[in-house]
Amino acid sequence: MQDWIGRILSGERRAIARAATAIENRTADAEPLLKALFPHTGKATIIGITGPPGAGKSTLVDQLAVLLRSRGVPIAIIAVDPSSPFSGGALLGDRIRMQRHYADEGVFIRSMATRGQMGGLARGTLEMALLMDAAGKEAILVETVGAGQDEVDIARLADVTAVLLVPGMGDDVQAVKAGIMEIADVFVINKADQPGLSRLEQDLRAMLSLSPHGKEAVPIVKTVASESTGIEEALEAILAVRVSKSRDEAGLWKPRLREMLRDRLIDRLPDEELSAAAAQVAARRQDPYTVLDQLLRRWFGYTD
Amino acid sequence: MQDWIGRILSGERRAIARAATAIENRTADAEPLLKALFPHTGKATIIGITGPPGAGKSTLVDQLAVLLRSRGVPIAIIAVDPSSPFSGGALLGDRIRMQRHYADEGVFIRSMATRGQMGGLARGTLEMALLMDAAGKEAILVETVGAGQDEVDIARLADVTAVLLVPGMGDDVQAVKAGIMEIADVFVINKADQPGLSRLEQDLRAMLSLSPHGKEAVPIVKTVASESTGIEEALEAILAVRVSKSRDEAGLWKPRLREMLRDRLIDRLPDEELSAAAAQVAARRQDPYTVLDQLLRRWFGYTD
Repeated sequence: MQDWIGRILSGERRAIARAATAIENRTADAEPLLKALFPHTGKATIIGITGPPGAGKSTLVDQLAVLLRSRGVPIAIIAVDPSSPFSGGALLGDRIRMQRHYADEGVFIRSMATRGQMGGLARGTLEMALLMDAAGKEAILVETVGAGQDEVDIARLADVTAVLLVPGMGDDVQAVKAGIMEIADVFVINKADQPGLSRLEQDLRAMLSLSPHGKEAVPIVKTVASESTGIEEALEAILAVRVSKSRDEAGLWKPRLREMLRDRLIDRLPDEELSAAAAQVAARRQDPYTVLDQLLRRWFGYTD
Repeated sequence: MQDWIGRILSGERRAIARAATAIENRTADAEPLLKALFPHTGKATIIGITGPPGAGKSTLVDQLAVLLRSRGVPIAIIAVDPSSPFSGGALLGDRIRMQRHYADEGVFIRSMATRGQMGGLARGTLEMALLMDAAGKEAILVETVGAGQDEVDIARLADVTAVLLVPGMGDDVQAVKAGIMEIADVFVINKADQPGLSRLEQDLRAMLSLSPHGKEAVPIVKTVASESTGIEEALEAILAVRVSKSRDEAGLWKPRLREMLRDRLIDRLPDEELSAAAAQVAARRQDPYTVLDQLLRRWFGYTD
């Protein structure tokens, strides 16, 4: 273990990869390892990149990675992907990306897939980011696919969150934009050469001006990631936010701890008792609220 | 309360609306109300409709609603929407939809928005569905925007889940498809008049044939919801699954109870202690795992 930790701290790729696998599979090694690494964390900037499917997140993340590497910054890319384990999609993506950065020890790439059970993704992503931080990666790009609660949870764990939008997105764009409004530190309008740009920009400004949280000042950057256009501006906007935000580490850790705690509590619920309770409720012999009160009393000693 | 319950059970719209508001705002009334209504639930079919933004979920749901109403089935539509509270998007959507069905007492429409805090959406959706079930709605259409863990959680609460896809969706379609593969009882290819239909169908069949869960048999239906094409076929496919699936009510209630329990546990965490713990971790005075062990021991009496 001591040797493994040393090799992770010195940034050795194979040691990091083994640790990432331990974290993803929740092996017995993962927790002692993260405990030992923890004092060496707190230096990296975690950058969340989110947005709806098809917005070009992967392309933008790759372009940001190339730019950061050209400045000599050691980086990690964590792609959080709702692929199921049997599709192999996440792994395939890893391999294609790894080929591009193969010779570069300064880049580490890892995909995280959602698990079958509820929750766990935000916690796993956080632990992966802590590993990369301890391993000396200075910028950690966390890319999330989709536009749901996952993204909001994961964005809360990041230091800066960039939200990608594309012009002409159709019916649901209002909903998508609004849901991620609160977590956006920077908006990136990707595929800015497509029709509908000025309309999207107007809608976005209008929405920001209505927001009660002083969001008017959120920068909007335009990119065409597939042509490497606007990448520097996007990175500068992200880094500027990082500098201007007072580093409220305790504020960051509160939701993180809550998320980890939730996971642990769920892991400890006795499965058989839960099955028996579910059967009672399904048969309408008891209502779910009464059953939950009983379980909380028995498992956690609550008395109300 | 007794009078209110009676009016809900007889399907009176204003009484239902008041209960829906109580559930959404988690007022003190909500839980006793749901307890009293619970014995009257278990008759409705909960149909989940999910898919990526822009797939045409709202249009399909509206068309299914019209068809079900033409058959005299009392229905509810619950639109789960990641809009933030200040955007007003969910409410606006409600109003536009309500106008269409205004004169029809057999339709009840409600939007649910994600809350600022973690979790809670699946629980709230379930409680809303139980309300509609008790109020005599025989089909409950639950529409979810996005493609993340939210959808998976909510789909687990449904009796049948239809997943919408559209031809020519771009880069992330693999990930989107794979993530929702496990929850899909029926695939609906909407906008089936667009280019890329046969490619999407091939990809989908190939993916299903690779799945280990006997998913090869999952029906694929094609619709153009905006032109009312294929709606009957979609509804029949959904209802056929509903009939063929053995009603495993206990199996449905286990994840529901787990979800509700998780919410309750999080609600009860002493906020100040969590803040203090976060400050310790942020300052790297303790690692998060040690802190969590201490909190679990103190709050829930765990000794390991």
